Amino acid sequence: MKLAEYLFQRLHELGIESIHGVPGDYNLELLDYVEPAGLLWVGNTNELNAAYAADGYARIKGIGALITTFGVGELSAVNAIAGAYTERAPVVHIVGIPARESHEKRLLIHHTFNDGEYRRFAEIHSRITVAQARLWDIRTTQQQIDDILLRCLLHSRPVYIEIPTDLVALTIIPDDGMKPLEIPKAVYDPSWESVLDQITVRIHSAKQPIIIVDGETRPMGIIQGVQKLLEITRWPVWTTPFGKGLLDETAPNFHGIYQGTFAQTEVNEFFNRADLILCFGPHWSSRPDVSIVFTDEAVEFNNKKHRNIPAAYIVSHLVHSLNLSPAQQYEPYPSLPHDFKLPVPDPSDNQPLVQDRLWPVLANILRPGDIILGETGTAGYGVRAMPLPKHTRVFTPVTWLSIGYMLPASQGAALAQRELIRSHKYFGLSSGRAILIIGDGSFQMTVQELSTIIRHNLNIMVILINNDGYTIERCIHGRRQKYNDIARWRYLQAPSFFGADPDTYVGSVKTFGELGSILTDNRFIDGSGLRMVELFVGREDAPTGPLLHYLQIQKEGESAGDNV
Amino acid sequence: MKLAEYLFQRLHELGIESIHGVPGDYNLELLDYVEPAGLLWVGNTNELNAAYAADGYARIKGIGALITTFGVGELSAVNAIAGAYTERAPVVHIVGIPARESHEKRLLIHHTFNDGEYRRFAEIHSRITVAQARLWDIRTTQQQIDDILLRCLLHSRPVYIEIPTDLVALTIIPDDGMKPLEIPKAVYDPSWESVLDQITVRIHSAKQPIIIVDGETRPMGIIQGVQKLLEITRWPVWTTPFGKGLLDETAPNFHGIYQGTFAQTEVNEFFNRADLILCFGPHWSSRPDVSIVFTDEAVEFNNKKHRNIPAAYIVSHLVHSLNLSPAQQYEPYPSLPHDFKLPVPDPSDNQPLVQDRLWPVLANILRPGDIILGETGTAGYGVRAMPLPKHTRVFTPVTWLSIGYMLPASQGAALAQRELIRSHKYFGLSSGRAILIIGDGSFQMTVQELSTIIRHNLNIMVILINNDGYTIERCIHGRRQKYNDIARWRYLQAPSFFGADPDTYVGSVKTFGELGSILTDNRFIDGSGLRMVELFVGREDAPTGPLLHYLQIQKEGESAGDNV
Repeated sequence: MKLAEYLFQRLHELGIESIHGVPGDYNLELLDYVEPAGLLWVGNTNELNAAYAADGYARIKGIGALITTFGVGELSAVNAIAGAYTERAPVVHIVGIPARESHEKRLLIHHTFNDGEYRRFAEIHSRITVAQARLWDIRTTQQQIDDILLRCLLHSRPVYIEIPTDLVALTIIPDDGMKPLEIPKAVYDPSWESVLDQITVRIHSAKQPIIIVDGETRPMGIIQGVQKLLEITRWPVWTTPFGKGLLDETAPNFHGIYQGTFAQTEVNEFFNRADLILCFGPHWSSRPDVSIVFTDEAVEFNNKKHRNIPAAYIVSHLVHSLNLSPAQQYEPYPSLPHDFKLPVPDPSDNQPLVQDRLWPVLANILRPGDIILGETGTAGYGVRAMPLPKHTRVFTPVTWLSIGYMLPASQGAALAQRELIRSHKYFGLSSGRAILIIGDGSFQMTVQELSTIIRHNLNIMVILINNDGYTIERCIHGRRQKYNDIARWRYLQAPSFFGADPDTYVGSVKTFGELGSILTDNRFIDGSGLRMVELFVGREDAPTGPLLHYLQIQKEGESAGDNV
Repeated sequence: MKLAEYLFQRLHELGIESIHGVPGDYNLELLDYVEPAGLLWVGNTNELNAAYAADGYARIKGIGALITTFGVGELSAVNAIAGAYTERAPVVHIVGIPARESHEKRLLIHHTFNDGEYRRFAEIHSRITVAQARLWDIRTTQQQIDDILLRCLLHSRPVYIEIPTDLVALTIIPDDGMKPLEIPKAVYDPSWESVLDQITVRIHSAKQPIIIVDGETRPMGIIQGVQKLLEITRWPVWTTPFGKGLLDETAPNFHGIYQGTFAQTEVNEFFNRADLILCFGPHWSSRPDVSIVFTDEAVEFNNKKHRNIPAAYIVSHLVHSLNLSPAQQYEPYPSLPHDFKLPVPDPSDNQPLVQDRLWPVLANILRPGDIILGETGTAGYGVRAMPLPKHTRVFTPVTWLSIGYMLPASQGAALAQRELIRSHKYFGLSSGRAILIIGDGSFQMTVQELSTIIRHNLNIMVILINNDGYTIERCIHGRRQKYNDIARWRYLQAPSFFGADPDTYVGSVKTFGELGSILTDNRFIDGSGLRMVELFVGREDAPTGPLLHYLQIQKEGESAGDNV
């Protein structure tokens, strides 16, 4: 078995069916083994986009991979790999590097700094990946590959593998007959029981408990457990933006994303009176006095971090043993707001689009199985208030907030979705769509990946929010500054330019009536492949919340005489 | 004077009139000061492209700058900054970072890894820049800025400046009344004379001397001296690919790029008999036995490196003192080949385009003052054999070879060219064009920067070589592998999609007759702003030389039964 065959077989075992990336002369030999291993080579237009796409794929399938070339290729992917690290997407970044002799002789070859220093690129990746492996001695490569793939899964973070060209086709004899890769389990310790007991006491004594679910429940592997806990307790639950779309949001005790200072008054009053907050994931840190916070390395409460006890153990135990009285289950259930839809507008409705009405209207198109991607910008805020059908997944700005991410991520996510559907692992559903909602500034960053979407005929609806520039930046600072302007493109020509069928569906929307027509047009909502609509929205319009708040502060500063 | 004002005034003094980059919330305050300082804000579509463009600008104007935002912005620029480091483009990378308090408190804010570690991005940049400055204490910022800008100029390599948002508008009182920045000169040492004497002896005793000029003559600041030396000696001169376009290539002793093993037999015989090779720049390393190699830190001959003596000193001395006899000046001049043009084809010429004929035909459109950019790929090889008018500059693959570089670089170079023309510093010329020749695979990588070219109405002719994929990779390995295919775009729709005037010139060329018509069409060759033609060339066609050689090796392997 050749080294490349071993690597790709391992990736395949873990659920990877497609590999993203860009060819380059130090990875071509490696690429010869991709399709023979039963893997699809995606072939992205550039490496940043390839890494974003692999991240999107990983968030849906549990792991993703990309292949780039030494120096010029891998460095273009740095920003995306850093984002995957931050937001915990398990991406395997494989880099084809020069033959070992070139390194040893410090040859002055292309794609180096021409100074014989070959290690700088790996040093850079050591800052943005959770583990690195330089395959060098064929006798250790199997162990290195197995170890690093497990690290990728365990931490749900990117890893980095360097493969010299002269190692690709060397023969290895797998030990253990290729025993399946499994994440090592924590070893039970009797001290866990005391922690569990303290938590159980806190739960039983709570008068006004609530639950917060963060996106890190996914890498922690406890989504199903938490879902059951919500059903058992019937306690009011909110998510962080990162947690949006991970739970059954049709449940009566689900109240959407907690908006902090921008939440409704009755929500904040309820939060402030809470005497227990079960918080799954680390992205919410207010009210530590009453919180029990579950992270992947500790459970924290009463100012104490209990390390080593897995959240999954506690959640599973609670699910099986918790016995709450009706009083502890909020009977009667308190009056708390839910996210809502607004009716699909009548075609005669001439109101120009405004964001506060836009999002509850757009929510009508969502179906079970959809993947909704709301790019950083007004879209990222807008999708937060959409009520979701079951089995949906949402991509929304979390921490990294790199504009340009969502378009390639939609390529990876839609490809992963299609693979899951084809192998009957997608909630019993036989179809699924990805819905990318993205501002014009973000769209420009990585636009060429539309061609990969077209090339692989992925089922993606693109909803472009054209507000003539970086509205998110205008809201934060410099609302009238030219640096927040962008070039004006003819956006709806994109499908044609990037090679789509001439009859690809495109639409343009300025009023709610036009939006209503498009939201009921089967060519748009039931089509396959790429289709695209452009929504024209005001330059200084945003969903009510932080962006409009910052904008208001700017305007008040202006009338007080500040510089704009 | 505010810190931002000081920085931008310094950049302006050094010749920077435009700043590339992308806005982001940690640099918006900084951007408020760009236009008031008399600088144009370019506003690129993404950071990789912005850095490529700043590199192109720097190569024409002597220094360039870009502004990005913390994390997400600066990391997207990494590949381009590494390329500028490798190929010695002096680029000032300015990054707006969070306020100092955020770092000190390790706040978990967006654009971080959410772990309180703020220094990783700067660590990454320390691998790819020649100097770094983190502005932090207002009392030292002036000195830090002055020092790092000098380092940028001295090494002709990128530098990295971090500016916290809370420092931007603080007041500084410049010492020295802002004394002009000047690169420190080397201090004369009497030991230099012995080196100079040895070189002079070698020159006078040479029977068959030749000269090689590399692109590092530009950062070494000796182009004019070397040019004079060529005129005085009348010795045969070749350049490396990096040196193409730096000299007056109309001189009778100029013989184009030395092609190494792919050079004509008579050239290689002449090289092999040479008993002295004056080599300006480090990118040519054959025949050290007879070479005197000038680099920016040493002069090397007889297996000895003489450090600290500046190449400029030696060159200047030779120019003023060298006195050669007619015999030492090749009278009669040897018979050596020159690059040549082929006639512009008649419109009736139905031969499909082939690369060996294409490049000598394309050479007819070149004019004094043109900047020719031949992207990595067949174009990069093709432009190497073009005879050049005076005052042209050529961008061609050197060491970094990052495909996607040339399109944004053409934006930066054309902008720099326009600024030089407008300030009457461009060889006395009142107009100039940039001619971008680029393959389809490269074009896809960074295509959106066409919109910046359109937005700023830059005078750029785009000649797209459509050979249906990565032909350079096909030649190297996997000529029939699908991974070297790319999506098929409708390339000529690009100007319209990216917002150009509907009457922007576009043309499509399959035969030499069609090429002839376009090369004599004033709308193409005399137009202003963007115009674009698409040339259809065979998938496995390349200029005679290394690419076709590699392809031939593959084909021989196939007929011998190897895997393809």
